Amino acid sequence: MSKVLVIGAGAIGAFYGAVLARAGCEVSVVARADFDAVAANGYRIESHLGDLSWRPAQVVRSAADYRGPADYLLVCLKLTAQTDPVALMRPAVDKGTASVFVANGIGIDAPIAAAFPDNELISGVAYAAVSRDGSGVVKHHSQFTRLVVGRYPAGRSEKAARIAEYVKKGGSSSAATDDIVGARWQKAAWNTVLNPVSAIGGGLGTQHILGSDESTDFVRQAMMEFMAVASAAGHPLPADSAEKLIEGTRKLPNYVSSMGQDRIAGRPMETEALLGNVVRIARKAGVSVPRLETLYALLRMAEQRGTT
Amino acid sequence: MSKVLVIGAGAIGAFYGAVLARAGCEVSVVARADFDAVAANGYRIESHLGDLSWRPAQVVRSAADYRGPADYLLVCLKLTAQTDPVALMRPAVDKGTASVFVANGIGIDAPIAAAFPDNELISGVAYAAVSRDGSGVVKHHSQFTRLVVGRYPAGRSEKAARIAEYVKKGGSSSAATDDIVGARWQKAAWNTVLNPVSAIGGGLGTQHILGSDESTDFVRQAMMEFMAVASAAGHPLPADSAEKLIEGTRKLPNYVSSMGQDRIAGRPMETEALLGNVVRIARKAGVSVPRLETLYALLRMAEQRGTT
Repeated sequence: MSKVLVIGAGAIGAFYGAVLARAGCEVSVVARADFDAVAANGYRIESHLGDLSWRPAQVVRSAADYRGPADYLLVCLKLTAQTDPVALMRPAVDKGTASVFVANGIGIDAPIAAAFPDNELISGVAYAAVSRDGSGVVKHHSQFTRLVVGRYPAGRSEKAARIAEYVKKGGSSSAATDDIVGARWQKAAWNTVLNPVSAIGGGLGTQHILGSDESTDFVRQAMMEFMAVASAAGHPLPADSAEKLIEGTRKLPNYVSSMGQDRIAGRPMETEALLGNVVRIARKAGVSVPRLETLYALLRMAEQRGTT
Repeated sequence: MSKVLVIGAGAIGAFYGAVLARAGCEVSVVARADFDAVAANGYRIESHLGDLSWRPAQVVRSAADYRGPADYLLVCLKLTAQTDPVALMRPAVDKGTASVFVANGIGIDAPIAAAFPDNELISGVAYAAVSRDGSGVVKHHSQFTRLVVGRYPAGRSEKAARIAEYVKKGGSSSAATDDIVGARWQKAAWNTVLNPVSAIGGGLGTQHILGSDESTDFVRQAMMEFMAVASAAGHPLPADSAEKLIEGTRKLPNYVSSMGQDRIAGRPMETEALLGNVVRIARKAGVSVPRLETLYALLRMAEQRGTT
């Protein structure tokens, strides 16, 4: 079976590490804040899938300490200004190592592809309601869970297909796609708008954000700006995407997005990955995105205030 | 000399009440929160103009208690959703009473003109750095101070000219104009953009808001949306207004706008007077104001959160 090193073992990394371990992979983790707890007791994962608690094969403080080589790096990082995925990955990137880069945002894969031109890069888009619930403890909330993977920037890949098979074997939903960048744009339509609005508002919940016709209309129009950028970038979304995302969000319980939670806690936010990159792509392509630009300006102000 | 009743004797009302009293008018006030202090000791006003402390002729709790008739109502109100200027004024509006309506915002005079069709309405735009510094105490900061008044909706008015003369006689700068609505649009260019940005950011200061090229560019573009609405409404501003306002603001010390201060203190904000009315006028006129609409949507969300 494959050897996997999880880099960025937060809730998503710990969850998919568990799934891959259950599929028979030899899974190790780079743990930083949770090193002591995980080295001593492994991960406890509360999930409707059953007992997903697991012990990594190796628990290391840095990828440099890993005894490899790894077949796969499973990179599950929050992309803030403070995080450099390439630097975290580099010590464990060996000949033949493929990276599975599970993260949110647009324009986030290219720097990794450029840094490791001889290694396969598989991008991943995760839909999973998981949260860290203490050191080494992860809660998997029983909602739609799915990992979509595919060779970056496009095309078929045996290794991506294998990862999807592992995840399915481990008991969770997964699929390989030929158009993973399109899948990133698809997921980002929600994130690019709802996350910043929540954060700018100091941690607003989804039902509050969609609490009036006026504000819902604003969200719809901001999403349509995003869709125009996606089209210009060659990844058009279905015309009813904004409407469907709004309807879908209305049906779910009130929820404070990850960026809203970061804002409340005063943590760094994924400002550039989720929003800044989209604004820059729009400007380059000559697409007018005044609503997204406004959100970006306000989010930057909030961010600069947060760190001063 | 004229009998004046000040309605809404906050910092602006107390300051111009003092100036009119110094010019020889018989000035009374409707005081609510500060009634006891003002009834006992009058107002203490710290100003570079000299000692402007004064005792109102009458201090009443409601316009209904005023022994009139007044020649002028000097109405200096913050226009929040909780404030109804017409209701506050009505008991003191007599035959021949003219109202001087000193407030910030766009589209704010028409309801008053409609409520009192047989009385002259003089609109006022105040540039005055004053702040309440305790019960019955007002600080007048030594900066540019000026009151522009004019008959609403336009035209010459002897009574407006007389008010301007009183203010000048009282030691402060003033002028009557034939186009007071134009003067409102002029002042609102700053307020419509900077106040909401400050409030949405939880009380951001001007130097923070103009702290980067990116954010300054956003402010400029939002002001240009406002200027397009002003033009459509028949009150075009000079083409370099946005630039001049930004430059002027940069030269002043860091300053948290009134709406930003309201947001910090959890007080009601002048959302509709400063921003909502402008957005509605834009929509009616078919002017695209996506940045202002975004600010409006976010400000409404903040406001609804604040009151729940």
